[in-house]
Amino acid sequence: MAKLLAFAVVSALIAALFYAVDWSDKTGAPGTFSPADAVVKREKFEEVFAVVRQELVDAFASQGVPEDARIWYQRILDYNVPGGKLNRGISVVDSVEIMQGRALTKEEFLKAAVLGWSVELLQAYFLVLDDVMDKSTKRRGQTCYYLLPGVGTISINDAGLLESAVYQLLKLHFRQEKYYVDLLELFHETTYQTSTGQLLDLINAPENVVNLSSISLEKFHLIAKYKTAHYSFYLPVALAMLMSQVPHEYTSADGKSLNSFQLARSILLPIGEYFQVQDDFLDFAGSPEQIGKIGTDIVDNKCSWCINTALAAASPEQRAILDNNYGRRDPGMEENVKAVFEAVGLRDKYRVYEERAYSRITAMIEDIPENPAFPSLKREVFTRFIDKIYKRQK
Amino acid sequence: MAKLLAFAVVSALIAALFYAVDWSDKTGAPGTFSPADAVVKREKFEEVFAVVRQELVDAFASQGVPEDARIWYQRILDYNVPGGKLNRGISVVDSVEIMQGRALTKEEFLKAAVLGWSVELLQAYFLVLDDVMDKSTKRRGQTCYYLLPGVGTISINDAGLLESAVYQLLKLHFRQEKYYVDLLELFHETTYQTSTGQLLDLINAPENVVNLSSISLEKFHLIAKYKTAHYSFYLPVALAMLMSQVPHEYTSADGKSLNSFQLARSILLPIGEYFQVQDDFLDFAGSPEQIGKIGTDIVDNKCSWCINTALAAASPEQRAILDNNYGRRDPGMEENVKAVFEAVGLRDKYRVYEERAYSRITAMIEDIPENPAFPSLKREVFTRFIDKIYKRQK
Repeated sequence: MAKLLAFAVVSALIAALFYAVDWSDKTGAPGTFSPADAVVKREKFEEVFAVVRQELVDAFASQGVPEDARIWYQRILDYNVPGGKLNRGISVVDSVEIMQGRALTKEEFLKAAVLGWSVELLQAYFLVLDDVMDKSTKRRGQTCYYLLPGVGTISINDAGLLESAVYQLLKLHFRQEKYYVDLLELFHETTYQTSTGQLLDLINAPENVVNLSSISLEKFHLIAKYKTAHYSFYLPVALAMLMSQVPHEYTSADGKSLNSFQLARSILLPIGEYFQVQDDFLDFAGSPEQIGKIGTDIVDNKCSWCINTALAAASPEQRAILDNNYGRRDPGMEENVKAVFEAVGLRDKYRVYEERAYSRITAMIEDIPENPAFPSLKREVFTRFIDKIYKRQK
Repeated sequence: MAKLLAFAVVSALIAALFYAVDWSDKTGAPGTFSPADAVVKREKFEEVFAVVRQELVDAFASQGVPEDARIWYQRILDYNVPGGKLNRGISVVDSVEIMQGRALTKEEFLKAAVLGWSVELLQAYFLVLDDVMDKSTKRRGQTCYYLLPGVGTISINDAGLLESAVYQLLKLHFRQEKYYVDLLELFHETTYQTSTGQLLDLINAPENVVNLSSISLEKFHLIAKYKTAHYSFYLPVALAMLMSQVPHEYTSADGKSLNSFQLARSILLPIGEYFQVQDDFLDFAGSPEQIGKIGTDIVDNKCSWCINTALAAASPEQRAILDNNYGRRDPGMEENVKAVFEAVGLRDKYRVYEERAYSRITAMIEDIPENPAFPSLKREVFTRFIDKIYKRQK
């Protein structure tokens, strides 16, 4: 076991070097460590966007709408869907490939990529609305969609059309499959969970009301799980499992009975939480060059991993500084908060957290009872994820 | 045929007297002509809201969210779902009853009412977003949801939770039915169509840009069909047809083969357009006491039936007045537009339109080939709708 772990850590480190991919989806900075095959993979995945885009535009036009509406609809898709890192979408294709244990046929690749683009469409729906709610100005290195001339709150309805596109694609490509209804329910459930996470986040950090005693690490974990982990980590793998027809009931080699989807969830949600901790830490510690944006969690009064960890370690004096300086739109006050973060040793605490999270998750992955009778639920599906994000710097 | 028509007109007039129900869903004024059985029907339907509300709140709480989030979620439901006229929801129950040709069992009533509340939830989703986009202040006689203290743009995410509730209820109550996937697809399709209609409406009337040559009656019909008719008229009946398992292929007594859903749509969409013409006319001609609000279509630069009809009849001088006064937030200019509406005889044109629409739709309903072998697709389903709205004054 210890040997296996050591091996896993070493291969993870090597993999991490190659897969230092930006999952944050917030910046436009190109990945510098992407190996050539990741570029090819991305290009192949992007080619499918042209297909689904045409299907969606044709369906929209077939309603007999005037030309200006068709042009508007095309821009909704082109401006909001393809410009991100595409990690969520590509990970559906990756996961299907690993589960099949071979290169996919052209038809299988198309289907997996359509599911991947459905995840990207769902994300686009949430991001467009997020930016309106957060009054953001930049997304993926470009002006937020709602700030384009003449768009404004029309973007709220446009986001709904992005969500509708998910179900149009599923109907077009999966209606004949016996797992079609499972796909629909999975998207419904994930949408509900993500909206729940947004609600927790939004009512927790009302503008102009700062009350640090109302936040907690427990709340942070709940928000991270609902707002990020379900749709970013569980959804892509669960889609791949449905397409690969991984049985729900799963028997391990030693005869234990498991629910394969629950098992996947039990590993992917902690990966998603770990990812969110990284996001929060980089918001504080990452340079703008690294993370492609300027961190705003402190002035935005966010229930982040950093503030919760600092609160747990703060002396009464430090606590007072946090109480009086957190969540204010004032650069001096932001610096005061950052000074307390440094004084309580947040950087060291993060390093400790990261190693523990990595070990804990790696151990969970090793515990997956692979079964030659059901070859599709493979550990590699999960190591691929953890390796992509371990020690990420952006 | 002429005799039948005369009979239909007379019974419709009588029915109209009793069913002068407000379908506009924009005012809080209680209906004064509702007969006692309509009140009982509404009360029975409202009782089911308590059931579905509890199911939804329990599901939300089961995610392990804190108390403040649960209370917030409850308010989303209570403030936005049950306060309207409920005509769309109740019409699902009505339609199922007519199709079955008998009183429903308790279980059937619950199922039909759950579908009815799903329509009301979908409508609530659209209305919450509508009010944000239109910067409205009142809805159903109360302050718009987004204007409640501390809500603001959080309402955008809250609307998404209302939409999610539709699919939670369908899963809970219909997952075992063979028409479950048809229900899901019907809601997906209707949501898409309604968002399409919103898009047409929103990009057609940009703020501060008035160009009357860009609007047309054709555009008006398209907007009415997509924005209103699909979800308000086709959706309730199609849901009732699915629950009643009306066959898609339908053979008339004289052996003609028809698609029953297309047939229903071909009648309900014109009813919806007629309804929208009424709405637009009342926005101009209805007193605030009648319609429970003050009409704003003229100052809002809306592509309404009134402006399109006036444009078609205007002299060059009248056209110039419309060009220079429509779509401006100025009471004097609004009066100038209204004067042209009167001068071109809009009231008479409306009366002519209404009679023609009523005759045309009644004739379509009479043409429905009822078939004793498929007793469920009955003309009464449709007469019930047209009778409810014919000559409505609010």
